[in-house]
Amino acid sequence: MAYPYFQAVELLRQHTPLVQCLTNSVVMQFTANVLLAAGASPAMCDTPEESADFAAVANGVLINAGTPSSEQYRGMAEAIRGATAAGTPWVLDPVAVGGLKMRTDFARGVVDKRPTAIRGNASEVTALAGLGAGGRGVDATDSVDSALEAARRLASRTGGVVAVSGPEDLIVSPDRVTRLHSGDPMLQLVIGTGCSLGALTAAYLGACRGSGLSLHDAVLAAHAHMGVAGQIAADRSQGPGTFAVALIDALHGVDVEDIRTLSTIQEDLG
Amino acid sequence: MAYPYFQAVELLRQHTPLVQCLTNSVVMQFTANVLLAAGASPAMCDTPEESADFAAVANGVLINAGTPSSEQYRGMAEAIRGATAAGTPWVLDPVAVGGLKMRTDFARGVVDKRPTAIRGNASEVTALAGLGAGGRGVDATDSVDSALEAARRLASRTGGVVAVSGPEDLIVSPDRVTRLHSGDPMLQLVIGTGCSLGALTAAYLGACRGSGLSLHDAVLAAHAHMGVAGQIAADRSQGPGTFAVALIDALHGVDVEDIRTLSTIQEDLG
Amino acid sequence: MAYPYFQAVELLRQHTPLVQCLTNSVVMQFTANVLLAAGASPAMCDTPEESADFAAVANGVLINAGTPSSEQYRGMAEAIRGATAAGTPWVLDPVAVGGLKMRTDFARGVVDKRPTAIRGNASEVTALAGLGAGGRGVDATDSVDSALEAARRLASRTGGVVAVSGPEDLIVSPDRVTRLHSGDPMLQLVIGTGCSLGALTAAYLGACRGSGLSLHDAVLAAHAHMGVAGQIAADRSQGPGTFAVALIDALHGVDVEDIRTLSTIQEDLG
Repeated sequence: MAYPYFQAVELLRQHTPLVQCLTNSVVMQFTANVLLAAGASPAMCDTPEESADFAAVANGVLINAGTPSSEQYRGMAEAIRGATAAGTPWVLDPVAVGGLKMRTDFARGVVDKRPTAIRGNASEVTALAGLGAGGRGVDATDSVDSALEAARRLASRTGGVVAVSGPEDLIVSPDRVTRLHSGDPMLQLVIGTGCSLGALTAAYLGACRGSGLSLHDAVLAAHAHMGVAGQIAADRSQGPGTFAVALIDALHGVDVEDIRTLSTIQEDLG
Repeated sequence: MAYPYFQAVELLRQHTPLVQCLTNSVVMQFTANVLLAAGASPAMCDTPEESADFAAVANGVLINAGTPSSEQYRGMAEAIRGATAAGTPWVLDPVAVGGLKMRTDFARGVVDKRPTAIRGNASEVTALAGLGAGGRGVDATDSVDSALEAARRLASRTGGVVAVSGPEDLIVSPDRVTRLHSGDPMLQLVIGTGCSLGALTAAYLGACRGSGLSLHDAVLAAHAHMGVAGQIAADRSQGPGTFAVALIDALHGVDVEDIRTLSTIQEDLG
Repeated sequence: MAYPYFQAVELLRQHTPLVQCLTNSVVMQFTANVLLAAGASPAMCDTPEESADFAAVANGVLINAGTPSSEQYRGMAEAIRGATAAGTPWVLDPVAVGGLKMRTDFARGVVDKRPTAIRGNASEVTALAGLGAGGRGVDATDSVDSALEAARRLASRTGGVVAVSGPEDLIVSPDRVTRLHSGDPMLQLVIGTGCSLGALTAAYLGACRGSGLSLHDAVLAAHAHMGVAGQIAADRSQGPGTFAVALIDALHGVDVEDIRTLSTIQEDLG
């Protein structure tokens, strides 16, 4: 491969993509710090009045329905409208879909708008596709493999990429399935690592446009960046507090060689 | 004692209680990380539409009125309704009650719903009982002992446990008063340590159900867990930044032996 | 000078000013921790119902329009009304003004209420004065010097102090311009360092009242405190994660001597 997924981190740092995050209050600060450390530029612009205009100038947009208010829902609809009109890539993170009717209905409606990528754990992806009951909050209670069929259906319905995050990650496009080995269990003990991975996915989609790298590779690169940073951080920490701090350092310090040597992929599992 | 308070940390880690937090935006991220590190599972579900349903499946609920919006107030009322109907234990944290009329009125109305536990500093507990003027924001300007009478009245009115947090903590039930010695002054220099102690109290109430441990011991165990983690963190830090990080590590690493040796209690002060 | 700017840190710690922050959700936690570490007392009180009353008892108020909701805008109007009536100093932080019409209109309206100080980057200050297009999100895309004329106009219009933050800082009053050399580029990689500098400015304005120190010196002292803490933190960190933690430690530990030796100023540039 002339330009494989592990080199995309250089595109990210060259382009410093502006990522508009419509996300939940719990993880806003962490998400912004993840983007800054990794090499992107965050903007937590989410009001109904400003979201469409901002989505037109952003390089990527994140729609995360973690703590939905009625005002945020209207902001999300506006951001999707603005992103779609301008051709800005955007990511849906269906947090806790399945367990709660309101956000499940909302997220399923968002799927019809054809997100460039969807990122969730196995329970959320399964529930989003209408195949399962969903998780309790943000826990993954199903294995990633159990969500393969759901991910395929969503990918074929949207024409986009669906990422199932877990101990391993599955990256699923209509014509390609990749399994990524990276990460560390400690990532589960820090709030917002999954949500900020959704934001990082939007950053990579923006950074990789026009590079010849596929959407699939961009999503894969985002997951490998976070996973490898997690592995490096685990070696430098004594618990979830020092891990979270070391993770931000590692997101900043990680380079092509780290991602090449510390992550592995398997193609065409389907 | 066959199963004293300092062993409750093992129940917490066995049960990983799901804690629904309706809390203020300032401390959401820290509260979630405290719960994850300690051994619980956080869910910041607080909308009017979702809160009652979620409270029925959660193992504990926190009601913290730190930055109240009208939408959050409705969410809180729904969560209390759902928790009460399902028998889910729930905790009231009367942040800054006394100084501000709107939240004081709200919190006093919540007392009538009979929270399983109330956790506040001396000023807040005193004001909640209608006996004093309250603090300025989250500062404790009164000593814990000054709030003993107020705590007794609230405990007798609700039938639950009232915890007064401070340099020492008082845990007050209708028939029992315990003074807990643990903690470190550095806890006052990190935002959200009090608020997340309220969430940890809800986690312990959920984890200890059916164990034979009393509600009183569950509340005591939560306070000892946080206090001892603070002592350990103080030894490993150079200021409030490194302290906050070490606190999360210590909440994760603390075991029965740490809590047994680093905290002390006095019973029946009343 | 009998009592120069670098000694103001002692006033801050003597008075522990209560700072009411009406700010965006992204940076609330970090802002509160910055204030606590530096020596102030934060209160994130921002509802329409409570904001005016609270502004009357606070020692300083921050108005930061980073993620504006309609309810927060009403809260801000109330806080400004309460602060003005009570003579409480207050700071406007015009986050992302220029790029987005709604918040630009709001912030320009706030200027007419004559804030005691304004703090922004060069793009924001320029746009607020109506002289430029503004930045993308919180990035500074203009140099601080490019904003000198805009800062002068705003200072003369409000009678207050205007601080332009960047690699160097300009502190501009109707009759005085000071250039401050302090800080570290790593401050740009942590979300909320600019926003919390606005809060720290409100803290210093409150702490310095009645001390004989001018408003100009109070604003200068806030910027030097943050800048010098950034220099100390940079020496103790390996990336933006450890930097953010070391910054909080340094904000707490910094003393008069640190600020005297690590910051330099030039007067009367105009």
